Order: sequence, then structure tokens, then C-alpha cells
Amino acid sequence: MILTVTLNTALDITHRVPSLRPHASHRVSDVTERPGGKGVNVARVLAALGHEVTVTGFAGGTTGQVLRDRLTEVPGLTDALVPVSGTTRRTIAVVDERSGGTTQLNEPGPTITPAEWSAFQEAYDDLLPSASAVALCGSLPPGVPIGAYAGLARTARAAGVPVLLDTSGAALRRGVAGRPDILKPNAEELAELTGSHEPLRATQDARRRGAGTVVASLGPQGVLALTPEGHWRAAPPAPLHGNPTGAGDSLVAGLLSGLVEHLPWPDRLARAVALSAATVLSPAAGEFDRAAYGDLLGRVAVTAEANAA
Amino acid sequence: MILTVTLNTALDITHRVPSLRPHASHRVSDVTERPGGKGVNVARVLAALGHEVTVTGFAGGTTGQVLRDRLTEVPGLTDALVPVSGTTRRTIAVVDERSGGTTQLNEPGPTITPAEWSAFQEAYDDLLPSASAVALCGSLPPGVPIGAYAGLARTARAAGVPVLLDTSGAALRRGVAGRPDILKPNAEELAELTGSHEPLRATQDARRRGAGTVVASLGPQGVLALTPEGHWRAAPPAPLHGNPTGAGDSLVAGLLSGLVEHLPWPDRLARAVALSAATVLSPAAGEFDRAAYGDLLGRVAVTAEANAA
Repeated sequence: MILTVTLNTALDITHRVPSLRPHASHRVSDVTERPGGKGVNVARVLAALGHEVTVTGFAGGTTGQVLRDRLTEVPGLTDALVPVSGTTRRTIAVVDERSGGTTQLNEPGPTITPAEWSAFQEAYDDLLPSASAVALCGSLPPGVPIGAYAGLARTARAAGVPVLLDTSGAALRRGVAGRPDILKPNAEELAELTGSHEPLRATQDARRRGAGTVVASLGPQGVLALTPEGHWRAAPPAPLHGNPTGAGDSLVAGLLSGLVEHLPWPDRLARAVALSAATVLSPAAGEFDRAAYGDLLGRVAVTAEANAA
Repeated sequence: MILTVTLNTALDITHRVPSLRPHASHRVSDVTERPGGKGVNVARVLAALGHEVTVTGFAGGTTGQVLRDRLTEVPGLTDALVPVSGTTRRTIAVVDERSGGTTQLNEPGPTITPAEWSAFQEAYDDLLPSASAVALCGSLPPGVPIGAYAGLARTARAAGVPVLLDTSGAALRRGVAGRPDILKPNAEELAELTGSHEPLRATQDARRRGAGTVVASLGPQGVLALTPEGHWRAAPPAPLHGNPTGAGDSLVAGLLSGLVEHLPWPDRLARAVALSAATVLSPAAGEFDRAAYGDLLGRVAVTAEANAA
């Protein structure tokens, strides 16, 4: 199975309103609720692709219980979340029906106690032997040491399990020192990590910091991948219009599924970019459009990049 | 005990953000959650005043369970909510820390089935014999007949239990036909009911439509009360600055507690206005400031109004 780690899970709530006006009262016309946090989103896409996937991280309180109940409804997904005394956060996306714009409210996550962090590490160690790949995804909740991802990456590598890291800020800066096999930053995270806004230079720099492969997601321009086997750019056939929520998580799911299926890098990148694009095109945030995915898969342009590093 | 009916209960969530900007992402700095819906708020104030109070209405789903768990923490309050298959709504108040302004998002309530409505009516009939007064509060959820409050008011009156109605729109227009003992509209509801924006004329009209007493809440101007024993105005000693959320519910709690303690009308009105003002002054929305209440109680000006009706 593929293991995804989400230390800061969330219950993602979407509220539709005709138009959000600050300091006014709004009748919400439609409410949807689903388990969230980057690693949970990655797991849902992997499960939809037919992979066996296990979700770990933390869940607690009533919100955590709702999240876990919902996870049982996903075929192919196993819940190995570690219970905590705090309450799992909610995120609320308020979607303007008129403009299509989204206003996001993110609750803080629960503070993790040292005992809970230890319990997680034990659970993680127990899960690793059955994992064909691990993804470490998203922000760290308060109480978890800032070097957490470096430690988890090292443990996975020691167990011979390839590990992908997708996080930001200090968690990324410290996490890359754990030498993850794949780093998946977006342009902003890459610039924050390296100080460079020039994608190729920043991707090279990120790789020198310890990552085996860096797949930089450059939004509408697709991805730039610097791997031990070669360097590539992969881009969707045409500019996409839609909701980019979850596009990065679908990209990660594509990379992981290609990894465990031992696809050559160009095929992995084509799959990842097609999945990501099919997520932008889907009317439901964070879901991918299967028909669009099938259509895009053969139309992603993958071009070799001169080995600049 | 005093019985309060809340057919459209809610879990009230408050999110604090530095400043709400449409289409931006916000980190919520503080989250609070409490049981809500007008009748639930009235019950909490009554319980804080030392009254035994029973809450009925509907609750369902995970949100309903959270609401019920929280009600068990209120001393003096008995939960007699009727379970429903739908999920109790949430309301989200997003408070701007910079401006103090509040943006409100109200989820729709669950649709009540005919069987659930019958179960409620049975529960209500069983509770009435132990009640010294009943308050019918707030909006009607989908599925409940629009004449619901008229029927519930008639049943209470037939059982010899005085009944107060606090609702709006069609539920108010139809409810007043049930001849509630006390109607507590605000200026807007009164204007909607009667077509008149002149408070005295509108209050007289509302009374002619079937209410024994009308206590019109006129915001900063206090209240205008037309009762069988006389007509009064009651107002706080000075203009108030604060959060008016819940001020109307505290007013209802003051009226009900004065009713069951058989206070003369001027004393009931003084209590109700002082409680309402102490709610505006409290930093926590919907709570009343006890010290302010004690201070204001002797300073509310109650003046007799010429019997114009």
C-alpha cells in the first residue's frame, strides 16, 4: 500500500453564498463537508486510481470523528489515524456563486502533546514495512517538532521506502535535510526555500539541499522535474480554466502512483500533470474529472531539459 | 419549569480573524462554539438567573450531538430535544478583530419529516403540564407547517400555560392567530407584520391581531409594552455601545422570568431591558454582564404611556 501522512488533518466545509459581503448576514444555499488535509486528498485520488492507500496522522474531537466516519466511505482507503485529545480543525471555503471567488477560513489545528507525537511515530514505524511509498504532506500542527519531516523521511529511507515531501516554510526547510526521494514544492515554496524566483535555478538549489528529485509545480506552466535520470518539463496542452484547489495534491498522487508502478519519469510526469489538470477542470473542488484525465493523458507535452545542474 | 421551544436549533461558531477580505485566505485566531437558536439562548439566560428551564425542539446529526453535549454543561437546563434524521445547522459568525464587524453565515436547517413533527408535538404535549410558561422562538425549519406556532400557542393556552412568541415573517403572521399571551417583535418584524413603521401604531395593530400583550423591542430606545394592565415604555439610562447579538433573547428571558415570578409589568420590563442592555455590554456575544445587569436594574426608566388603543 501507499502511505500518506497528514499531521494536520482537517474537515473541509464548503459554503455556497450568492455573494460574500463583509459585515452582512448570509443564508448558505449549499453545504458540503469532506475529509481534508493534503495527505488525505492525495490518498483519495490514489484510491480513485485503484491503489490501496493508508492514511495516518492525527484526528481528535467531534470533527475528527466526522472525518474518520467519512474516510470509511472511500473504497481502498485504510484509516490509521492516531487519536489525539485536541479537536481536529475545520476549514471553511465560502464560494461566491456570482463571481466564483473563494474566501477561506482555516481554524488552527489542535496542539499535539509529546505523548501523542511518540504514539504517532510508533504507528508510523509499524506501518512502514507494508508501504511501497510514503508521502509526507502539509503543515505541522503546534506541538510537533519543526524537524519532524526530516526524521520521518530518514526513518522511511532506512526502511527502504521511497518518500515524497510536500510542505512549506520552516517544515520544508528543515524537512529537506532528511533527504526525501522526491520534493514537490510550488513556485512560491521554492522561492521561500531558496531565495530565488527563477524556477530552474531554484529547483537546482532545492535539489542540492538534499532532495533526490525535485518536481517543481509551476501552476499553468506545468512542472519542471530534476531527477537522477534526467531533467524534464511537462505541461498541459492548453491553458486551463477552473478551480486549482487540490491540483497540487493530485500532482502528488500522480507522482506516487507512477513511482510504485515503476513508470519511467516522463510517463510519471505526464500522468501527474494530466491528473492535476483534470482536477482544475472538475466542477467539484479537489476531485478530478475522469473523462478529462483520460483525454489529457496523451496530450501532456513532456520535453527533455538540458542537464544544467 | 419554563419551557423554551427552538424548532431550528443551531451550533453557533465564532471565528475571529484580523480582517475579513473576500477571496482571501484567513487564519482563524480563535474559535468558540456554543449551542444556539433563539430558544436555546433564552434558556441559557433563564438558567443563569436561577430558573429551572427545559429546552425542546429538534436536534440531529453530528452537529446536533455536539449541541446536546454542550447543553448538559448548563446547570438548571434540561434537554428535551427531539431527535431528527437531518443534521442540525451551524451558524458561523466571522468577527473582524480590527473593525469589530461581524459577517454571518447561516446554514439551512434540516428538513423535518411529518413523523418527526408529530413526535415533537407529542413531546410538547407531555412537557406542558410541568411548565409555568412557554416561549416559542425563532424560525421554522423546512417541513414544519407555517401555522406551527399558532397550533403550539393554542395547545399551551388550552393547558393554562402562558405563552410568548418571538419569531418573524410568515411564522409570526400566522403564529399571532394562535393568540399568544405575549408577542415580542422588534421594529422590523413589527413593520413587516403590520405594514406600519410607526412603533405605537404598529404595536397597537399587532395586539389587535390576537396577542394579549405586545412588547416591541425598539433597539437603543428600549421597549414599548402594550399590556392588559397598562402601557409603558422602558429604556436603558444611556445609549449603549457593544454587540447586540442575543439582546432580544435576553429580553425574552427577562419577560419570562418576570412572568413566572408574578412581577408587576413595570418591574418585568425593567428587568428585561436591564438584561438586554447587559447583553449588549458583555464582551462575549449573547452572554450578559452580571455586574452591568445589577447596576442597570435600578436605572431603567419605565414610564407609563397614555392608553392610546
